[in-house]
Amino acid sequence: MSIKLFHYNFIRPYGKITFVLRKPRITDMFLIESRDKESKARTGILKTAHGDIPTPIFMPVGTGGTVKGILQRDLSDDIDAKIILGNTYHLYLRPGTEILKAAGGLHKFMSWDRPILTDSGGYQVFSLTGNRKLTDEGAIFKSHIDGSRHVFTPENTIDIQRVIGADIIMAFDECAPWPCEYNYVRKSVALTHQWLDRAVKRFRETDPVWGKEQFLFPIVQGGTFDDLRRESAEKIAAAGLEGNAIGGLSVGEPADEMYRIIEVVNAILPDNKPRYLMGVGTPANLLEAIDRGIDMFDCVMPTRNGRNGMLFTGEGTINIRNRKWIDDFSPVDAAGTSIVSQVYSKAYLRHLVMSGENLGAQIASIHNLSFYLRLVKEARIKIEEGNFRKWKDSMVKKLSERL
Amino acid sequence: MSIKLFHYNFIRPYGKITFVLRKPRITDMFLIESRDKESKARTGILKTAHGDIPTPIFMPVGTGGTVKGILQRDLSDDIDAKIILGNTYHLYLRPGTEILKAAGGLHKFMSWDRPILTDSGGYQVFSLTGNRKLTDEGAIFKSHIDGSRHVFTPENTIDIQRVIGADIIMAFDECAPWPCEYNYVRKSVALTHQWLDRAVKRFRETDPVWGKEQFLFPIVQGGTFDDLRRESAEKIAAAGLEGNAIGGLSVGEPADEMYRIIEVVNAILPDNKPRYLMGVGTPANLLEAIDRGIDMFDCVMPTRNGRNGMLFTGEGTINIRNRKWIDDFSPVDAAGTSIVSQVYSKAYLRHLVMSGENLGAQIASIHNLSFYLRLVKEARIKIEEGNFRKWKDSMVKKLSERL
Repeated sequence: MSIKLFHYNFIRPYGKITFVLRKPRITDMFLIESRDKESKARTGILKTAHGDIPTPIFMPVGTGGTVKGILQRDLSDDIDAKIILGNTYHLYLRPGTEILKAAGGLHKFMSWDRPILTDSGGYQVFSLTGNRKLTDEGAIFKSHIDGSRHVFTPENTIDIQRVIGADIIMAFDECAPWPCEYNYVRKSVALTHQWLDRAVKRFRETDPVWGKEQFLFPIVQGGTFDDLRRESAEKIAAAGLEGNAIGGLSVGEPADEMYRIIEVVNAILPDNKPRYLMGVGTPANLLEAIDRGIDMFDCVMPTRNGRNGMLFTGEGTINIRNRKWIDDFSPVDAAGTSIVSQVYSKAYLRHLVMSGENLGAQIASIHNLSFYLRLVKEARIKIEEGNFRKWKDSMVKKLSERL
Repeated sequence: MSIKLFHYNFIRPYGKITFVLRKPRITDMFLIESRDKESKARTGILKTAHGDIPTPIFMPVGTGGTVKGILQRDLSDDIDAKIILGNTYHLYLRPGTEILKAAGGLHKFMSWDRPILTDSGGYQVFSLTGNRKLTDEGAIFKSHIDGSRHVFTPENTIDIQRVIGADIIMAFDECAPWPCEYNYVRKSVALTHQWLDRAVKRFRETDPVWGKEQFLFPIVQGGTFDDLRRESAEKIAAAGLEGNAIGGLSVGEPADEMYRIIEVVNAILPDNKPRYLMGVGTPANLLEAIDRGIDMFDCVMPTRNGRNGMLFTGEGTINIRNRKWIDDFSPVDAAGTSIVSQVYSKAYLRHLVMSGENLGAQIASIHNLSFYLRLVKEARIKIEEGNFRKWKDSMVKKLSERL
């Protein structure tokens, strides 16, 4: 039986026998290992063609086929990233689908053999491109690189992600801004839902290009409106895909609004499937979301803020540009969170960042990503040990400090 | 006897006994191990307080306390740099002498425990700052960072380099531009010589700040004028310091002019002391200079050109921006020169460089520096084996190819 299930997603439905083999193996992709009694937090394993991923997990963002400033070796061996993100929008524009196809997919192109998740490009089309035009068909947009015109549809973003070959791919959605009128969000959710049906259809009609199973995740939208979020969560849950995502949060709304929406949505999204909170957030955001049943995260914060000289530590955040660190020769993080945090001093890192030296961005990025990965790993341990809530409450307090 | 020699440079000449102990230990710093019979090439060991350096050697440039874009761990463990360069001009301006003093010197500040050589700042004062004013006393210049006014003298550049704590420090010199009038160069050389006497005096009057022996190298100037170069080489040789440098080359003059000047100067500089050719150059330049008796090199070329997408290989140079590499998925360097050169493809590196991704600069820098370090290591082996000249001739031909 398990062998039949395993074959399900690999084989096209050319006949009756094949149809039988294509039964979903939903219960296989995500195994819940333990649950916290005081919260909705849980630990699990996400199974992908490129390896297993322990959850809760944070996924470093590798927008254009590179986690900015970090060698793949350091990403796997030192930071211990289990899965990274790629972006359909960026990869489609550069290097382009033809090159990725010739390379044998993104894994081979960028020499990364662990799992990859690709965002559909929805968020980027709406945040990076001017003069975009939205139709029922899809989104017409201009490249932020050279102004050239392109169209993304629910179908072609599946096709592109098939070529990219990510282990987890996302349905094309519209991410409404915040704040936003109810009526705009209502229409936007309806469009995202219509697009989802088309994305699922295309996904089911096509096979992985590289022979490795891919999972499609749909995205709950609805802004900060509870009823629209409920409607969207029900639609997304009904799609019956192997995992589900929540988009359109951490776009400017207060953290409490975000937490409320997570609760509203997670009460509807199936409990036995992984829940991915897109583009979130601060270390405290992660812990609060884990508490509410989220399993997966991505965010540019550890790398982008790191490049600007912001460091996350277990005692709070450090703005390394602050003059107070100019002659502080203590380690970047005395707790030794990463391979760099005890090697280099705050004064040295400050010197690099103030001088615009790339090494400063590299050290800060390695440190911050290591911190995020260690944080979710520790959350996992605490959930398993049964003392997550207490640990979370004390951590959230410390993480909010400014050193 | 050897113990007496060893103490020579450490102790101030306050009395007769101290004077006896201050005899030079010239023969100790540089040990020549083998000589090529067909050329002036030789191999040796430079002994410093932070470790031995096999020669010929190439020194990666770490201008402001960082070899741009490279973790110190990778610099030592992967690239196998034996010694790196720092720059007095940059370090004096940022982080500044006070911070370096509080840190315990540059080695501790930047977490690098292998040898360091610091340039005196002469070249930078003349190449980076506008409105500089030259007097017998020294050079008045404006910071390229904030326009603030500063003065460098032969004395204070020794003092600053004492605080920095580099193993090898350089005398303050004027580096004349090319092309340049004979009379300008003649006066410039006279000034550099007058400055040298003052630098040597200050050097002998002061002790290492961090208790680790430092060596002062003077710099031969004289543009492309043989008689001025001879005069300068004689002056520098007569200073009797532990090693000697040749400056003012590779500033625009044809390579053959440079090689001729090296021959003129090396015929005068003592054969038993290390010879450092400053700011040179291409891989072929290195081999031709080794052939003419040069032992030490530094140059920004492997890192700066790397950042611009130029890669050095044993088969010639690659401009990775060239469209021909867009779908070339073969390794950056099939010879596996560095830890990155077989991991990443030309197409991927091109994608990174074209996208302005820092990882592109990092990969190219690691590759190029590894190539330079391997080139001088191979030269060393060929000299020891007695077939340097033949190898050099075939290498220079290949290195000049454009792939």
